Amino acid sequence: MNKPPVIPKYLQHIRVVLCRPSHPANIGAAARAMKTMGLTRLYLVAPQLIETPMTPNPPLYKDSKTFSLPEESFTLASGATDVLEQAIIVDTLPQALHDTVISCALTSRRRELSVPLQNPRQGVSEILAAAKTCQECAIVFGNERFGLSIEETMNCNRLITINGNPDYFSLNLAQAVQVIAYEIFSQIDLPMEHLQDKAQMVTHQEIDGLIGHFSEVMQNVGFFERRNSERLLRRLRRLFDRNGVEREEIDILRGFLKTVTKSMDK
Amino acid sequence: MNKPPVIPKYLQHIRVVLCRPSHPANIGAAARAMKTMGLTRLYLVAPQLIETPMTPNPPLYKDSKTFSLPEESFTLASGATDVLEQAIIVDTLPQALHDTVISCALTSRRRELSVPLQNPRQGVSEILAAAKTCQECAIVFGNERFGLSIEETMNCNRLITINGNPDYFSLNLAQAVQVIAYEIFSQIDLPMEHLQDKAQMVTHQEIDGLIGHFSEVMQNVGFFERRNSERLLRRLRRLFDRNGVEREEIDILRGFLKTVTKSMDK
Repeated sequence: MNKPPVIPKYLQHIRVVLCRPSHPANIGAAARAMKTMGLTRLYLVAPQLIETPMTPNPPLYKDSKTFSLPEESFTLASGATDVLEQAIIVDTLPQALHDTVISCALTSRRRELSVPLQNPRQGVSEILAAAKTCQECAIVFGNERFGLSIEETMNCNRLITINGNPDYFSLNLAQAVQVIAYEIFSQIDLPMEHLQDKAQMVTHQEIDGLIGHFSEVMQNVGFFERRNSERLLRRLRRLFDRNGVEREEIDILRGFLKTVTKSMDK
Repeated sequence: MNKPPVIPKYLQHIRVVLCRPSHPANIGAAARAMKTMGLTRLYLVAPQLIETPMTPNPPLYKDSKTFSLPEESFTLASGATDVLEQAIIVDTLPQALHDTVISCALTSRRRELSVPLQNPRQGVSEILAAAKTCQECAIVFGNERFGLSIEETMNCNRLITINGNPDYFSLNLAQAVQVIAYEIFSQIDLPMEHLQDKAQMVTHQEIDGLIGHFSEVMQNVGFFERRNSERLLRRLRRLFDRNGVEREEIDILRGFLKTVTKSMDK
């Protein structure tokens, strides 16, 4: 008889982030979809709950301390209420991505962004390689109607899309979570793709720090005069996100930027 | 911009068979799940519909000629009602499997059958290989509560199970169809055009130029005092070599380095 699969511990390093979800039921259904595939870490970014038959007075989101999920979410979660109880509620997406080295924004294909688009097989392969070396990863799902904003997408360093029928694509939030969760579990037995020294990958906030430092020095030397600073910094960020910049490389660049500042102060 | 995927014609050779389904809504949801992933051929074997709020008087199945699906199925099918309209209704599973060369029974792991169990990745791989040579294949899903009977399972020549959390596995009929349909579409070999414009890859000497420029400015600001300049530059080069820095990124960095030099000369 076939041995049932064991849930590897490293799945703990994968977090599912629902960004501004609307429907209480979807949050519960997402919890079930996650637990069914061995995922337990749910993050909710500022849920903007709408009125539903089961939830006529949805809680208004003010901050993470005062917000709690309505009963409907727990009802739909069924045997996965533990996932909801342990869910971490935060105000912003960067907070949900804190400590992550890979953050995948799930997008529909129609987005015209110049970041490379991966399919779930590719994206999940990278995520598992990082998770296996105990590094935190996130998969980010947007609002049911509006998806992720451009800004939210740019907080992430990967883009995944679920491919399907270009003329008819009907996958709701919970179904999308199910498909990605399935893809994750399906790759557990696979030999890990060889990725360059994943132990050295840096976190979301470390890249924030590097870009912020570039921004500061570029401003001070006057590099932004007659240039679009936002666009330039976004463009630069892509270089570091795409490459999986290593900590040592960040240190070199920031050390250099520091020295530039010092030499200008003389 | 990414071109959306095209649905290969050979998907027509894959049929989804729902064997004695109970819930009108699931049939509609299955149709959506199928169409979302480019599948159109639905077979229903002697549906045994139960009473639901939307379908208080479900049609009793007598034979395929006199049976028609209730409104609820069409409502849940939403934009995939064409799949329902073209669905073939038959009395027995062998009739649904007529002409197929591969028939995969979807089963839960708890079945103790001595037929080898494949995971969806393996099963679908075989199915697609057959479909690509115009041979008919079927994936068979059982009743929501009871699954497939031993006899029904033995009509099939393959067994697939969707692996997941052995302690909590909550995947309903429509979700199972969604997962399998996703797996099928995911294995269609469509080139994922990367948005990264390959024409932008830079030459060896352009990277030389960038590193050389860094070297010059780092020297001038005194960054190399008490540091191994050769090692640092080699290390920095790895960042740019590793994933192919783009020309626009080199321009930004060299533009910045130029401005640093200018501001120092003031």
